[in-house]
Amino acid sequence: MTAPFTSARTPDETARLAADTMWENDPACRNLGIEILDVGPGTATLAMKVVDTMVNGHDTAHGGYIFALADTAFAYGCNSYGTVTVAAQCSITFIRPGRRGDRLVASAREVSRQGRNGIYDVTISVDGTVIAEFRGHSRIVGGSFIDGDVSKVDTPAP
Amino acid sequence: MTAPFTSARTPDETARLAADTMWENDPACRNLGIEILDVGPGTATLAMKVVDTMVNGHDTAHGGYIFALADTAFAYGCNSYGTVTVAAQCSITFIRPGRRGDRLVASAREVSRQGRNGIYDVTISVDGTVIAEFRGHSRIVGGSFIDGDVSKVDTPAP
Amino acid sequence: MTAPFTSARTPDETARLAADTMWENDPACRNLGIEILDVGPGTATLAMKVVDTMVNGHDTAHGGYIFALADTAFAYGCNSYGTVTVAAQCSITFIRPGRRGDRLVASAREVSRQGRNGIYDVTISVDGTVIAEFRGHSRIVGGSFIDGDVSKVDTPAP
Amino acid sequence: MTAPFTSARTPDETARLAADTMWENDPACRNLGIEILDVGPGTATLAMKVVDTMVNGHDTAHGGYIFALADTAFAYGCNSYGTVTVAAQCSITFIRPGRRGDRLVASAREVSRQGRNGIYDVTISVDGTVIAEFRGHSRIVGGSFIDGDVSKVDTPAP
Repeated sequence: MTAPFTSARTPDETARLAADTMWENDPACRNLGIEILDVGPGTATLAMKVVDTMVNGHDTAHGGYIFALADTAFAYGCNSYGTVTVAAQCSITFIRPGRRGDRLVASAREVSRQGRNGIYDVTISVDGTVIAEFRGHSRIVGGSFIDGDVSKVDTPAP
Repeated sequence: MTAPFTSARTPDETARLAADTMWENDPACRNLGIEILDVGPGTATLAMKVVDTMVNGHDTAHGGYIFALADTAFAYGCNSYGTVTVAAQCSITFIRPGRRGDRLVASAREVSRQGRNGIYDVTISVDGTVIAEFRGHSRIVGGSFIDGDVSKVDTPAP
Repeated sequence: MTAPFTSARTPDETARLAADTMWENDPACRNLGIEILDVGPGTATLAMKVVDTMVNGHDTAHGGYIFALADTAFAYGCNSYGTVTVAAQCSITFIRPGRRGDRLVASAREVSRQGRNGIYDVTISVDGTVIAEFRGHSRIVGGSFIDGDVSKVDTPAP
Repeated sequence: MTAPFTSARTPDETARLAADTMWENDPACRNLGIEILDVGPGTATLAMKVVDTMVNGHDTAHGGYIFALADTAFAYGCNSYGTVTVAAQCSITFIRPGRRGDRLVASAREVSRQGRNGIYDVTISVDGTVIAEFRGHSRIVGGSFIDGDVSKVDTPAP
């Protein structure tokens, strides 16, 4: 007699498995040079270096790349329970510019999870100095993607 | 006696000159494959194709790239008067997924301009179907970048 | 044999009936002195006077009351199809102060409606001058409230 | 020879003096029945009871009143240094409904303060259960309002 496989995992193991599964299916993330530093239930810390293709003529990072890193940390955080979850609405405040060569670190934490809706805040920093703050709203739209239950519970786009 | 050079330009000519100046100084924008379709006073329409490096394993566009296009249209719109203007806070709502091969078109329009602050809305669509709505808040932080007056009126980061 | 009552209504009649039904059930709205100027499918225009209880010591309107009017216009707009719809996330930008005695007019328009999700923009003005811009995200959570179908399709809070 | 009066105050004393000064000049706040529970540098905790005039026909709190409390906590937080600071842009996510008779508690904390710009998050709860999350963007627009330096450094509306 065996316990169901799912219940045998700790929340941290689920978060790690979810992150590994997402990573394999996300070339965009790898192309951006994103590293996964840490994941846990509702949390994720990612890093990305500001390379030549990401800056404008003043050597400051294009806001789109700062957002992309934050949005990815948000995605890893809200999908850390292994349930198909999408970004519905996100906002970002740019506080200081990012520079060519900077290593951006984005830390996502769960602010709220109620029903199928979640709120996640992501702080983006360089050497400990915050350069942007991000808040993302997520919505669960499917079943478990780590246990093969890919039944949709809702429309794919939130 | 000559009229000042600046007043000899129409608003549309100023917008075009501002866009050309920005384009020359923005390799990030070119690397994304963004095309400038149209610019005017407070407006900008840009396009970008969703290429292989921008999608995840399900062939849907990474939200970061959709944001990057919208943010760029916002930047061209709010800088169309030739005055150094930066993004302060932006929000985006994802309505439908973008797909590999889609040609995204982002149209920015000015909602408000009061003192140094502006609000710009950007609609992102594929073949006329809206896939995301973006609202950006801008702040003027310097003088004219098309007439060489680069004196800062404020801190660079909003 | 009769056609169903619902299909006999025009969209404008549905919007009017929805507004009347909401009005009867909303003492908060009446206590604020809000007037319904116009409603239509996805739209609503409301007015409210800034009275003594709504201002601070500098005779400027408390932002909460400006938001309350905008939020109400949003609610009338997104409920104009007669389907139980709630506010999920709202943002407001304050552009100019409101003053004691000002008559605020809030006009809501539909930006997007996809599945159960909607985006509505509300412009708040005084004598034609915009003082605030609001963007609200709505979610349908039940059946028709004008035809007695109050079955919930989702959790009450978005 | 005396030290300047301002430097003789601790940050907590400055926050308390700022709150007292704001309270005397804010009848709107008192009319809402708001209580100041605690203030500190960058923080404020306020409470408000949901009374009959604040609910709709289903006895749930009008979102405008929940926002008004959060916005007030934000205002006390961002003005806690005694410098004239205004709300520029605010967003709120409604998580659960508030009910007639509920005592709402709003706790504001400082997320960022850089130059004249600030970000403050406010959590609104009832008996420890979160019902809404608010994020406000502030801008310093004047001198000290507790030392009589009311010189404007910027336009009054952000």
